[in-house]
Amino acid sequence: MTALENRPTTVDFDSPEHQARLADLYRDFEAVGMTPLWRTREGLMPPHPQPKAVPHLWRWDDLYALAARSGDLVPVGRGGERRAIGLGNPGLPGDPYATPTLWAAIQYLNPREDAPEHRHSQSAFRFVLEGEGVWTVVDGDPVAMRRGDLLLTPGWHFHGHQNVSDTPMAWLDGLDVPLVAAVDQGFFEFGPDEVRDKRTPDRSNSERLWGGPGLTPVAAVGARPQSPLMAYRWVHTDAALTAQLELAAEGVEGTLVEPGHAAIRFSNPTTGGDALTTMRTEMHRLTAGTRTRRSRTSASSVWQVFTGGGTVTMDGEVRTLGHGDVVAVPAWTEFSLQAEDGLDLFTFSDAPVFEKLSLLRTQVTEGDDA
Amino acid sequence: MTALENRPTTVDFDSPEHQARLADLYRDFEAVGMTPLWRTREGLMPPHPQPKAVPHLWRWDDLYALAARSGDLVPVGRGGERRAIGLGNPGLPGDPYATPTLWAAIQYLNPREDAPEHRHSQSAFRFVLEGEGVWTVVDGDPVAMRRGDLLLTPGWHFHGHQNVSDTPMAWLDGLDVPLVAAVDQGFFEFGPDEVRDKRTPDRSNSERLWGGPGLTPVAAVGARPQSPLMAYRWVHTDAALTAQLELAAEGVEGTLVEPGHAAIRFSNPTTGGDALTTMRTEMHRLTAGTRTRRSRTSASSVWQVFTGGGTVTMDGEVRTLGHGDVVAVPAWTEFSLQAEDGLDLFTFSDAPVFEKLSLLRTQVTEGDDA
Amino acid sequence: MTALENRPTTVDFDSPEHQARLADLYRDFEAVGMTPLWRTREGLMPPHPQPKAVPHLWRWDDLYALAARSGDLVPVGRGGERRAIGLGNPGLPGDPYATPTLWAAIQYLNPREDAPEHRHSQSAFRFVLEGEGVWTVVDGDPVAMRRGDLLLTPGWHFHGHQNVSDTPMAWLDGLDVPLVAAVDQGFFEFGPDEVRDKRTPDRSNSERLWGGPGLTPVAAVGARPQSPLMAYRWVHTDAALTAQLELAAEGVEGTLVEPGHAAIRFSNPTTGGDALTTMRTEMHRLTAGTRTRRSRTSASSVWQVFTGGGTVTMDGEVRTLGHGDVVAVPAWTEFSLQAEDGLDLFTFSDAPVFEKLSLLRTQVTEGDDA
Amino acid sequence: MTALENRPTTVDFDSPEHQARLADLYRDFEAVGMTPLWRTREGLMPPHPQPKAVPHLWRWDDLYALAARSGDLVPVGRGGERRAIGLGNPGLPGDPYATPTLWAAIQYLNPREDAPEHRHSQSAFRFVLEGEGVWTVVDGDPVAMRRGDLLLTPGWHFHGHQNVSDTPMAWLDGLDVPLVAAVDQGFFEFGPDEVRDKRTPDRSNSERLWGGPGLTPVAAVGARPQSPLMAYRWVHTDAALTAQLELAAEGVEGTLVEPGHAAIRFSNPTTGGDALTTMRTEMHRLTAGTRTRRSRTSASSVWQVFTGGGTVTMDGEVRTLGHGDVVAVPAWTEFSLQAEDGLDLFTFSDAPVFEKLSLLRTQVTEGDDA
Repeated sequence: MTALENRPTTVDFDSPEHQARLADLYRDFEAVGMTPLWRTREGLMPPHPQPKAVPHLWRWDDLYALAARSGDLVPVGRGGERRAIGLGNPGLPGDPYATPTLWAAIQYLNPREDAPEHRHSQSAFRFVLEGEGVWTVVDGDPVAMRRGDLLLTPGWHFHGHQNVSDTPMAWLDGLDVPLVAAVDQGFFEFGPDEVRDKRTPDRSNSERLWGGPGLTPVAAVGARPQSPLMAYRWVHTDAALTAQLELAAEGVEGTLVEPGHAAIRFSNPTTGGDALTTMRTEMHRLTAGTRTRRSRTSASSVWQVFTGGGTVTMDGEVRTLGHGDVVAVPAWTEFSLQAEDGLDLFTFSDAPVFEKLSLLRTQVTEGDDA
Repeated sequence: MTALENRPTTVDFDSPEHQARLADLYRDFEAVGMTPLWRTREGLMPPHPQPKAVPHLWRWDDLYALAARSGDLVPVGRGGERRAIGLGNPGLPGDPYATPTLWAAIQYLNPREDAPEHRHSQSAFRFVLEGEGVWTVVDGDPVAMRRGDLLLTPGWHFHGHQNVSDTPMAWLDGLDVPLVAAVDQGFFEFGPDEVRDKRTPDRSNSERLWGGPGLTPVAAVGARPQSPLMAYRWVHTDAALTAQLELAAEGVEGTLVEPGHAAIRFSNPTTGGDALTTMRTEMHRLTAGTRTRRSRTSASSVWQVFTGGGTVTMDGEVRTLGHGDVVAVPAWTEFSLQAEDGLDLFTFSDAPVFEKLSLLRTQVTEGDDA
Repeated sequence: MTALENRPTTVDFDSPEHQARLADLYRDFEAVGMTPLWRTREGLMPPHPQPKAVPHLWRWDDLYALAARSGDLVPVGRGGERRAIGLGNPGLPGDPYATPTLWAAIQYLNPREDAPEHRHSQSAFRFVLEGEGVWTVVDGDPVAMRRGDLLLTPGWHFHGHQNVSDTPMAWLDGLDVPLVAAVDQGFFEFGPDEVRDKRTPDRSNSERLWGGPGLTPVAAVGARPQSPLMAYRWVHTDAALTAQLELAAEGVEGTLVEPGHAAIRFSNPTTGGDALTTMRTEMHRLTAGTRTRRSRTSASSVWQVFTGGGTVTMDGEVRTLGHGDVVAVPAWTEFSLQAEDGLDLFTFSDAPVFEKLSLLRTQVTEGDDA
Repeated sequence: MTALENRPTTVDFDSPEHQARLADLYRDFEAVGMTPLWRTREGLMPPHPQPKAVPHLWRWDDLYALAARSGDLVPVGRGGERRAIGLGNPGLPGDPYATPTLWAAIQYLNPREDAPEHRHSQSAFRFVLEGEGVWTVVDGDPVAMRRGDLLLTPGWHFHGHQNVSDTPMAWLDGLDVPLVAAVDQGFFEFGPDEVRDKRTPDRSNSERLWGGPGLTPVAAVGARPQSPLMAYRWVHTDAALTAQLELAAEGVEGTLVEPGHAAIRFSNPTTGGDALTTMRTEMHRLTAGTRTRRSRTSASSVWQVFTGGGTVTMDGEVRTLGHGDVVAVPAWTEFSLQAEDGLDLFTFSDAPVFEKLSLLRTQVTEGDDA
């Protein structure tokens, strides 16, 4: 072994001789697959998140038109499984990922068409911008999909979809596919080719059992990691947002995120935590003219305009928002929303993952210069 | 110090001399307030719970008639605070306690009458057998009280009641008064003489904020020990019980406590646990002819018939059950219910206390000889 | 039903006629075991805890002398189970309880004497003021008892004691007997008449498995309500208290409860919470001259002087403290300690019960006038 | 919109015309960054984890020799920060990652050399195969590094290293760098160029405060996400492993993972959970001749031989194991170990991440044909 004090202090690190020895070392490193931290540290350990993903906006009209064209050209069936088209972040070329952890897709089902059953460790939800007529069958429980609803498919639940109507239907699919892929946690299994229960009830079994506010079936008491409630209906979501704003107007404190900004989180009634373990799902409402605080969070998120219009500002760049538009917000992007006449947005993010790992950070940047 | 081996093995423990020394010792113990375990162990540490409280049943007609008489004779006001009459278990003479941990009372409010505001560390709820017209105002939030509803007043929330109708109203009050008294945790504070908000809204603020199934206000995210939802409405409770039975009839598994026996637990949406920290509250429904398993639990409970009739069997003694009747079930009482044409019962117990302390035990005794 | 507005406003509540009707009512209440809140509210719901238990101090010399006398006169055996003498609070006559929830007793075992095995739902610990030579056998695991050690017997663990030495040994037993009795949670079962393992190892199995700091056996991973570690040795307790004071002297912040006051809590390594579910156990050390803040808590506690001397002040009354003295502190007693030349005290309380029920309150009263 | 029933059933999906329209569609998808699931599903959602990372083994002699050469050629200083050389999995070319979530590196410090202070959201630990003389200073607390010790640097704690001896020292660094990079959670900040406390105590402050088994400082009570104990000493680890095997030999059940296989998990004394939020750290000991069950887990892991030798079998391929050798085990690799004369191994994995997300799966494959 070589003691430092024995090293001649006259070593000339810039000498050609030294450089040659160094080159040898790096070559030998490479041969055994070793990488010196001192040559990569800055990239590996940035001062704050520097995502490859970029802020991005997709227009609903574009998404829908393309999905409809695929409805004409591509059948749904075993193997491909779904007529779902993933939104690829331009900063992540080659990967159909909205952010490094989140998959967002538009799924399109023709009239009288079925998507076969399967299950996977990835968790999923559907958010319905418009339309109805499709039932998603989750572990044998047919769940109606209607405008404004959030429908869950927690990990490892069998699910298929059937359109019983005479019109096509499209919706937003959200999954943790990129996260699960990045960390090698994917399991997948085929189910029946046809959904196992063709009934089309107004309320799913899960709603009948778990849909009473604060009511737990005694037979099913106990914490579960994922929500047993598979549908969060728009009528309730809308009422809750309306109530928050009304209560604030009546002088009740602590009901709003900030003035003019109501929001609800879809949660797991058995724990009070997020409905899914890997994704946070929320609905936000901004009153006319409201502009949210500028802030950053280390979570990445996707937003979809449900109703109304306005603008989104991401790292200083302003984009207009219209019906159905989808926005990807990478980690640590400075973000704010502004409503024109009123703006309802659905959003999902990977925040619960980082909350559980004590990694989540959030920073209000309002005070900074924009 | 005295070593055992020095004691003459010829000691005669029954000798008058020994008995005299023993009497001296016991007298000296008493002088300093000491009690030998060997003389009290059996009483202190029974093989299983041997409550002083006894199984007991109060007839609603008796309770209501007496409450109504007090409505004529006793005003409600500051100091006495409430026209509430506690049900005293015959096994606990002198104490107005239904069981060693649970207070059950009938409260009666005359037309246009108010009960002044106060708060206490004891948690409380009201269960409404019949009638309407009263609002309980909880921390400034007026909560309508109507037939079949469960209304909460978690510990240290200010609350008062006002009857805005032209008829008297009576209901069941449940509190953890005996538990809190036994362990010296009582704090009490007077509030305004009149309820601070005289409005009579159909839905309380707490319901507007927290009453959406699985919907959490983002501004109020986080676990709370007690439920933020102050009212559990009969319409939801009834629907949930109906659904459990229907689903079971449709072949869905795991929805019932046992065949013919549906039950919901009122829970805290921020945790999924019991709505109150010290009391479990549930609603049970037995279909016509259903007889529950005989079982014992170390929790004590109180039951009130909401609708229907049948019988209760406690430690082998059968009693008929009719509308409004109240039953006290001490710890480790063998207990079962039988429905005649159908039977809905509200119940509360101290089970959450013992669950948290790892003391709760339950035993199905079906297999035993009845 | 009687409507208030129909009551003649001219009713004279003080009239003999009214008083007679009221007396009738109260008699009828009594007949069915009902108690009006308005006549008992003040006693049932005090403004703050008003325990019947009183602050009390027992001298170790008295306790030990009496225990030793019982060693001569009373055998240990099946039925009586233990030569343990409970300290009865003068405010709770008839009950051998130090506080309404805590049992404190001196247990005395003659040389070569055994106490038979049993188990109970009540949790227990032993704290050893002085001496050694006894092994407590917990679920078959012999645990040495030595000066300064805390030994656990969580609920429903079989346990017996054997003295293998030629000298008697006495120690402090702490249990939740009064709490468990008050709420009817007692279960008890006899075990073998002799301890099942007569070995006298230096370290118990539980210490060998669980005694490494931060080391969890992979085969036994998972939260348990009670600690799996049955012995907390004085050598570690002493070192931790010494370190807290040294670190504070070195300028490290956050190591002391207050200046001159070190304290450790005996905890459950599988959760980080209290070692027992119903009792908090701690060791405190005050440096010479240190006087603690005056404070009240709704928990009740028992303290025993381990080494040193000083004074305790309870609700303004000052008592001197010497070796082995035991103090009962009821809920909401204003309490402070003052050390003469240094003072080590063991303490246990019912605080975890009330923490879990969201009932615990603590108030520093330093600023108040004493 | 196009209704399915209007589509001519005579469509020929294989016709050149259809193929052309499809090509158009795919081109248009690409233009807006959309990817059809049906063309990527199999890759995105495999039937079980199909990691790009491969099972791999690095020889300690190779690692050490290269690290020592870099000790001669490369100074440690601000910017590069550490003379740490990351082990790159051959299946993940270009990334210096042992698995998709875990970073493993050999760090080398010359005699009398310092590594400057910094902090980062990534959590880290050091495991010491051999040598001593270095202190890692964690948030101002100098922690000695010695053979067999595990030293923690939880996320966002400042840390630097100093070698006060006359010999170089090398050790294994483990971090969650790949996970944090994949999900954009990296924050980094420089600290002082020299470690802020040059003292070289035998025990760190964290050990003095938190190193007593089951002893919690009252001043610091409460759950923390990461362990406050910065050093887990070999003397304790070794004793715990020895005890598990001895106890099993004495007939105590439940102490071993499987016959001949002892293991401890380094845990957070404030919660009983893993010492770090993102990485599980354990020490395993196999007695001579012991062969572990074959199993797979969806967690990925890295193992380092501490003492002894044997073989590792990964997906059927057998490799010999010697002193200091490092093994990377991707998710779902069938894995088993066999000891020759006895084998001690340190291991770390990403299991806690997936446990928290309800994604972790484990499968014993013993019964399968190898």
